[in-house]
Amino acid sequence: MNIPKSTLPRVVIIGGGFAGLAVAKKLKNKNLQVVLLDKHNYHTFQPLLYQVATGGLEAGSIAYPIRKVIQEYRDFYFRLTNVQEIDTQNQKVSTEIGDLSYDYLVIATGSKTNFFGNKEIERNSMSMKTIPQSLNIRSLILENFEQAVLTQDPTEQKALMNFVLVGGGPTGVELAGALAEMKKAILQKDYPDLDMGKMQINLIQSGDRILNTMSEESSAAAHQFLESLGVVIWKNVRVTNYDGRTITTNSDLQFETATVIWTAGVQGALLAGIKGSELVDKAARIRVNEFNQVRGLNNVFAIGDIATMESDLFPQGHPMMAQPALQQGELLGENLVQLIHNKPMKAFEYNDKGSMATIGRNKAVVDLPKYHFHGVFAWFVWMFVHLFALIGFKNRAVVFLNWVYNYIRFDREGRLIIRPYKKRSFTTFTTDEL
Amino acid sequence: MNIPKSTLPRVVIIGGGFAGLAVAKKLKNKNLQVVLLDKHNYHTFQPLLYQVATGGLEAGSIAYPIRKVIQEYRDFYFRLTNVQEIDTQNQKVSTEIGDLSYDYLVIATGSKTNFFGNKEIERNSMSMKTIPQSLNIRSLILENFEQAVLTQDPTEQKALMNFVLVGGGPTGVELAGALAEMKKAILQKDYPDLDMGKMQINLIQSGDRILNTMSEESSAAAHQFLESLGVVIWKNVRVTNYDGRTITTNSDLQFETATVIWTAGVQGALLAGIKGSELVDKAARIRVNEFNQVRGLNNVFAIGDIATMESDLFPQGHPMMAQPALQQGELLGENLVQLIHNKPMKAFEYNDKGSMATIGRNKAVVDLPKYHFHGVFAWFVWMFVHLFALIGFKNRAVVFLNWVYNYIRFDREGRLIIRPYKKRSFTTFTTDEL
Repeated sequence: MNIPKSTLPRVVIIGGGFAGLAVAKKLKNKNLQVVLLDKHNYHTFQPLLYQVATGGLEAGSIAYPIRKVIQEYRDFYFRLTNVQEIDTQNQKVSTEIGDLSYDYLVIATGSKTNFFGNKEIERNSMSMKTIPQSLNIRSLILENFEQAVLTQDPTEQKALMNFVLVGGGPTGVELAGALAEMKKAILQKDYPDLDMGKMQINLIQSGDRILNTMSEESSAAAHQFLESLGVVIWKNVRVTNYDGRTITTNSDLQFETATVIWTAGVQGALLAGIKGSELVDKAARIRVNEFNQVRGLNNVFAIGDIATMESDLFPQGHPMMAQPALQQGELLGENLVQLIHNKPMKAFEYNDKGSMATIGRNKAVVDLPKYHFHGVFAWFVWMFVHLFALIGFKNRAVVFLNWVYNYIRFDREGRLIIRPYKKRSFTTFTTDEL
Repeated sequence: MNIPKSTLPRVVIIGGGFAGLAVAKKLKNKNLQVVLLDKHNYHTFQPLLYQVATGGLEAGSIAYPIRKVIQEYRDFYFRLTNVQEIDTQNQKVSTEIGDLSYDYLVIATGSKTNFFGNKEIERNSMSMKTIPQSLNIRSLILENFEQAVLTQDPTEQKALMNFVLVGGGPTGVELAGALAEMKKAILQKDYPDLDMGKMQINLIQSGDRILNTMSEESSAAAHQFLESLGVVIWKNVRVTNYDGRTITTNSDLQFETATVIWTAGVQGALLAGIKGSELVDKAARIRVNEFNQVRGLNNVFAIGDIATMESDLFPQGHPMMAQPALQQGELLGENLVQLIHNKPMKAFEYNDKGSMATIGRNKAVVDLPKYHFHGVFAWFVWMFVHLFALIGFKNRAVVFLNWVYNYIRFDREGRLIIRPYKKRSFTTFTTDEL
């Protein structure tokens, strides 16, 4: 792939997410040759994908060009490609644009949606892990409403206005809240000929509380916030199938719906070449030691969502979210420099800064390690934490401006179907993507 | 298409561009039933498409949701669809979502790219009339550079870095300038391993000056601005073919290039049902009288780019740009109300406010009816005119913020390949779109 030969040790980083970029930044001008590979030419700020999906923000506001990050780094190379396989024996990775040998390899491929093997659900429902997927959700929501306006069949209309979100984790909860806000801010104003009472937002959760990784207090508050926004929450229900028309569950509950958004599971975005239960856990995450080293391999590391560092405190590895990814990435960057200079590495210790979720206007829940709170103040905290976590002055300014506008005007202007998701009618349900 | 029956006269407007929206706004709460049809659910601010194509602005900044415009208008309906045919005999239009009868019809379908019948050029080159097309251009530019980094074949690399714009009108000139700025602001920083001397921007013009609808002074200034930015201008050259690899002309000039952007011609976006040289001119524009009435039809009107109102001053109709469209739309809105109340209509008189084009940072040309100027002041005038012409406070604020950022930082952050345009290599040139 046309990377110059060099006498410097070569570090290959797969993935430009939170983890991969954090390593890259620490390797700036360290007398290493660094090659960063990603299938997109931008970094995605995943915590705000749901706002792109619901028209609150433009895609460009939460994406940041990777080449811009490394613009002034010496001996740094970015290549836009899909990595196909890792060959740890011969120390190389295979990609769509050729092979690349490495001295040190950092696997930071993140996670992808887990449909637990159900191909029919996978085919018919929407995921929200990337910007194109989020834009597809946005298009589909709006296309369903355009379709609902046309139909005179009440069953069809109801199904088009019925949204089912599967999974009560932060993504499902935030998306449910944002959809409810979208209903009030846009849909009921834009579609005066529709009876908005028919629009339903259903959140289906297999466990007995939503946000089950957060405190019980936050779960309860989020539950109440969602209900006050009109979201219907179904607990202890497990979805069994969705054929594109009817979603069925392990209880009597079933819906006709044109839109299922699946947030019920994630798994490591594992690449070929790393396998076996010795190396990979059930969630397709790569087992690593306290230095994020892959078992038995001195020069191969995995960080972020794709890595599971099992410990007493985290028997299944750290939560799959931004903080562990950032912290592991930063430490690994420092450790790599140490390792290359034959100096001792430092073991990873997770600094739990807490977690939070926003449900809607003035409604958020925050769990700090020793303190939980929710409501307006939590919402402001959530906003400022996310604003400052964004990369780039311009993205921060544009997001801030959008939020202020959306807040003051009770509006969201991103209701644009730039690329239609599907040309379909509820009755035929063709799934040809455009 | 599920439009309620009403005793009010029904006006159907095809197209939500400058002309169509201007009519719609004038028909607000006038005791008419109005149905606005468009194939997009947003209005496009076409004059800034070239900035979307070159990463200076996000698509959402120059698009405005049509439903938001008409949100509070009584008896107004929007339908997202492609109109297929007009049947003036039976007073109805056929669309993808069914037929619709009208009492009054306003055709405001605008224009589309004119390839003058050359199918091979049409298949292989890019147009820039819509937001998706502009995003395709942006993706292609960036994909070509990603590809150029990979190749070790100097001919292929040069072709990937060679951009050919055909047509020296405002679109070609503005795009050439923006590409030259993109080269300086982004490309040479983002691709340090490429020799930027190889990047060529060629503007091919069949006549003997660029911007030939503007004053000679402005043409000369624009020419000089472009050359100072490194754009190579070819005059009196007519492109004869482009096979996806080699562009040939009526002279000895030919290039190997991976990117041809065709701005050399526009024609009316004519719908089936209106035909014959009595009704339609050679540019596929519908001949109208001074009230924008289609010949022989009392209740069918055409406005904007699709209409040609031939007069002594404008023997081939008004220029195909925003101002005539806006002015015709506004007047037609008033005239329709007059007509329906059996009152006399007012003949259209074009108020030429002048024209302008921007070439780059601090570089623009402005022709007022009696006064021409160019340079920094012209550039500020251009910016403020365009800023205030945008619909919506938020779009204005976001565009302003982007421009200030781009100006101060010599940067453009929109270098995102959200949807790849083509997966192709220069050697195989597959043209499968994604």
